Amino acid sequence: MKQRPYNFSAGPAALPAEVLEQAAAEMLDWHGSGMGVMEMSHRGKEFIAIAHQAEADLRRLLAVPPNFHILFMQGGGLAENAIVPLNLSGGAAADFVVTGSWSQKSFKEAKKYCDAQLAAANTAADGSHTTLPDPATWRLRREARYLHLCSNETIHGIEFHELPDLKSLGSDAPLVVDCSSHILSRAIDWSRVGLAFAGAQKNIGPAGLTIVMVREDLVGHALPVCPSAFDYKTVAEHGSMFNTPPTYAIYIAGLVFQWLLRQGGVAEMERRAVQKAELLYGAIDASGFYSNKVERSCRSRMNVPFFMPDERLYAPFLEGAVARGLLQLKGHKSVGGLRASIYNAMPLEGVQALVSYMTEFQARHG
Amino acid sequence: MKQRPYNFSAGPAALPAEVLEQAAAEMLDWHGSGMGVMEMSHRGKEFIAIAHQAEADLRRLLAVPPNFHILFMQGGGLAENAIVPLNLSGGAAADFVVTGSWSQKSFKEAKKYCDAQLAAANTAADGSHTTLPDPATWRLRREARYLHLCSNETIHGIEFHELPDLKSLGSDAPLVVDCSSHILSRAIDWSRVGLAFAGAQKNIGPAGLTIVMVREDLVGHALPVCPSAFDYKTVAEHGSMFNTPPTYAIYIAGLVFQWLLRQGGVAEMERRAVQKAELLYGAIDASGFYSNKVERSCRSRMNVPFFMPDERLYAPFLEGAVARGLLQLKGHKSVGGLRASIYNAMPLEGVQALVSYMTEFQARHG
Repeated sequence: MKQRPYNFSAGPAALPAEVLEQAAAEMLDWHGSGMGVMEMSHRGKEFIAIAHQAEADLRRLLAVPPNFHILFMQGGGLAENAIVPLNLSGGAAADFVVTGSWSQKSFKEAKKYCDAQLAAANTAADGSHTTLPDPATWRLRREARYLHLCSNETIHGIEFHELPDLKSLGSDAPLVVDCSSHILSRAIDWSRVGLAFAGAQKNIGPAGLTIVMVREDLVGHALPVCPSAFDYKTVAEHGSMFNTPPTYAIYIAGLVFQWLLRQGGVAEMERRAVQKAELLYGAIDASGFYSNKVERSCRSRMNVPFFMPDERLYAPFLEGAVARGLLQLKGHKSVGGLRASIYNAMPLEGVQALVSYMTEFQARHG
Repeated sequence: MKQRPYNFSAGPAALPAEVLEQAAAEMLDWHGSGMGVMEMSHRGKEFIAIAHQAEADLRRLLAVPPNFHILFMQGGGLAENAIVPLNLSGGAAADFVVTGSWSQKSFKEAKKYCDAQLAAANTAADGSHTTLPDPATWRLRREARYLHLCSNETIHGIEFHELPDLKSLGSDAPLVVDCSSHILSRAIDWSRVGLAFAGAQKNIGPAGLTIVMVREDLVGHALPVCPSAFDYKTVAEHGSMFNTPPTYAIYIAGLVFQWLLRQGGVAEMERRAVQKAELLYGAIDASGFYSNKVERSCRSRMNVPFFMPDERLYAPFLEGAVARGLLQLKGHKSVGGLRASIYNAMPLEGVQALVSYMTEFQARHG
């Protein structure tokens, strides 16, 4: 088969071709059942087997401890911005670290349900986000029910390369982590985390599935106004089948999990992510033409926003990129420029092709 | 191609083979874009075209008036049970007609958000639901912000063959209709409806997509505790893209809409539904062996629960059915027996095959 274009979309994002090929082959008949996966009752043995396998594979990939529930939900990160405080805040205090658009949105939405306060922010005078605030400076309230952060800001390209150890900072609050855009690209230190959630449409693939991994003791405290379908206790007690789950998205996520296991799991994904990110940032920094504004210590391995010295160059850059099979490189409208999202499904060859095109473009326009 | 098995699942349910074949063919490359639909940014021109076409086709199929929004949401009917009162009740009065499991769940969930009262119920002394209460007897409160009913009860097999005209009953309340399990099998009289919602996993296909059609004047009154991602105003203002929509489910729904248009639209689907239902109910009634307990005037054309005189016959019936390619005929656990869901994607030949098997089974076991 001809090489597929390299798709740098920030999400919904590229899937491994092997996964799509298997899904296409099984579309009308899954394993001789006479049904496609989309046509199966979620209560039937076929789909229950698919969902159990997906959950077990994810638990294995991320070493999710036995005292954490894995929930398959709907609504994405933006819905979780309400669902987390509805379940965890008790209407009391919750602290937020704001490091970009996503954590800002989480902070704003939480104010509807609890006493949400800013523990720290990285906003510069010009509104940009290019650094991470040092945890030693965070204002942690003793009464906070949890502390929320976004461990990889998709739009601003900022990543926590180590999760803070709140206990060493004198806080007993569980850490809530929005890891949507780098889940499965690195291990999660569960000793530091109470809840981690991720919309699947970035580093897993299908939109419409939200994965919530939550410590058992944090479940069962929802506010009375929490919709039953979004009450973690209800969802957990029904094995993520209180309401009909997004069955096909779970199936595709499960195929991605199996693909990840075949590749060597999360450790191998991290090795590749480091390699791809070093190649791309290295090319940007060495160019004297392209630039990335994020402090090196917190540059995202997944989402790389970058800029050129002249606004008029973006249109021809994007046009030439498409002609070379390099897709969806336009930057987010709130920051402009270009952005390459290089998730697990992006092979090293895709980043090499991008760097090669960048060099060529610079030679013509730099 | 060999005849596929006939799949009588109540949901997620069978899809037209043509739709699945097209989805499989386009899985790795949609219309030469170099991307599968699952890999496209929801903000890109390709997916926006898919979503717009799906919305326009649905509007055409159901003759949705211009003053109704069509929203693509997540969470299914069970989430809407909270989302509707969060948006429409204003924390005040709302009336409910309970005719089976689904409307019972809607009534219970709404009590969390408003003064929900029973306008009518069809519950018999033994807990069964086999009739519809006469609208002339409903207790409609003047102050009710809306009246909720489920126009087709999937589990109990009861269908409203005409929506009540609340104005003629002296009520100005908008009617809220959960039409999940018979949407697109008949026209909707929009002059009688304020909001209609449907989980897509029954008579459209993919799970994880909820369709909400709501009159503009009912939007913009959400309670402060309504999550932003489920506030109809926010969803409408963002063209159903406030949070990342379930893109692949929207694409599949769109393929189903185009299939429906090719078949002759909703009028043709209704003609076929009547024909299929008459065939199946006729066979049940004439058998003296199989039985359906629902009053004839409100039997569902979509979901046909039926029973045999001896509990011990169900296991061999289901085993023989599978051997003949007749799948997912087991009744819902709350009512037992058998259930054939004969949605739009079920051809007449499937019902003929079922009736033929029923006759054969009766001859051996009757």
